Amino acid sequence: MRIETCFTVGEADPGTLADATVVVIDVVRSTTTIVEALANGARGIYPAVSTEEAVKLAHSLGRDDTLLCGERKGQKVEGFDLGNSPAEFTADAVAGKRLVMSTTNGTRAFGLAHESPRVLACAFTNLSAVVQELAGVEELVVLCAGREDRFSLSDALCAGHLVARVLQEADGDHELNDGALAAKALASRKPSKKFLGETAGGRVLIDIGLGDDLDICAEVDRHDLVAEMTDQAITRTGSTAGA
Amino acid sequence: MRIETCFTVGEADPGTLADATVVVIDVVRSTTTIVEALANGARGIYPAVSTEEAVKLAHSLGRDDTLLCGERKGQKVEGFDLGNSPAEFTADAVAGKRLVMSTTNGTRAFGLAHESPRVLACAFTNLSAVVQELAGVEELVVLCAGREDRFSLSDALCAGHLVARVLQEADGDHELNDGALAAKALASRKPSKKFLGETAGGRVLIDIGLGDDLDICAEVDRHDLVAEMTDQAITRTGSTAGA
Repeated sequence: MRIETCFTVGEADPGTLADATVVVIDVVRSTTTIVEALANGARGIYPAVSTEEAVKLAHSLGRDDTLLCGERKGQKVEGFDLGNSPAEFTADAVAGKRLVMSTTNGTRAFGLAHESPRVLACAFTNLSAVVQELAGVEELVVLCAGREDRFSLSDALCAGHLVARVLQEADGDHELNDGALAAKALASRKPSKKFLGETAGGRVLIDIGLGDDLDICAEVDRHDLVAEMTDQAITRTGSTAGA
Repeated sequence: MRIETCFTVGEADPGTLADATVVVIDVVRSTTTIVEALANGARGIYPAVSTEEAVKLAHSLGRDDTLLCGERKGQKVEGFDLGNSPAEFTADAVAGKRLVMSTTNGTRAFGLAHESPRVLACAFTNLSAVVQELAGVEELVVLCAGREDRFSLSDALCAGHLVARVLQEADGDHELNDGALAAKALASRKPSKKFLGETAGGRVLIDIGLGDDLDICAEVDRHDLVAEMTDQAITRTGSTAGA
């Protein structure tokens, strides 16, 4: 199999994405939040690039059972129903709802991969489920959302654990790009609230009083759930749908 | 001290560069070649972004004692005197000469840092000399040339060894960005011809028959030499000048 890891959205080659299974990672926090929302019964997550587009989309979906979610500079967008803290996305808040979500980095990564044959959302919280779902895949791109076109260590660490686990399960030869080789080398480190708190994304959250979000972000396999982007929305899929 | 590592030129923030000592790394091959050329008596290396600019600059410097050097897609530019293989830059070829050099990635990194107070060129071949030269520096940016805006593992590995060594020597607190933390974690791997041969840059060289260049690229402390960019040119500097 061939595994390419891109540490920023800008590193991704559109031609490669078009032929590959793409796994989007934005540990702090959008893919963690997406997994949490789907685990707690949200019907689907609709990524929107701008807050204006989010508001428009929420109205076209039907505002009654649609929640507006997202952040700018880590904080909930004014007038939105929810921010981007995984702990906000409880069953009480999201079960049965559609969520329109606009985040700084994660949304862009999903947008870039929209022509790929399969696009999955990965965080530490659903790592093993993603690994299982990738069995038999030949062309894999692990697309880290990064931090505004910069390297994000939390995403790279999750990419590394994913690549290492996928290689453990894979038969035959494999070819890794430089990013995948580097990510795999990072996987000797374990995720923890402390580790994430030393990254740029974690430090910002701590500074704005949302450091407790990192508890969930660092929890490996909190949910047995595959989140897949199809058409407009990210939904729970495969053997984990409705589980 | 504060250490920021940028894995691509695009990650670098111009404001941060303007206040920092910048170390440019392009292991395969431009900073390795620069170190080799200066060790063998070249008077200075003049980076040029385009091959046209290189030709113009060589004429303005005086074509008699100026060599045109550089590559595109790894191969020597047609009509140029030398390519970008460190082994070409022998004393016989370069002693006493000015070298105008245009390479795909390295040149761009030097261009970006031209307003920084100090800009050094680093490869494995002069690692310890650079570490010593950085004693007492408070703001350091390690700028990896990367591969056309993509992560390069050979540069990241060298950045990691540099960061780890600088931290060993530094007193007091330090603050690392995500890139520096990741690079440091990579530094448990040792450079070798084999390791570099598995990276994207190394594979390209092997494919075009220049794999032996990796012998020099992987040789730690082959030269006790600091290469510094001042005005237009990169020259041998500090305690190592004329050594």
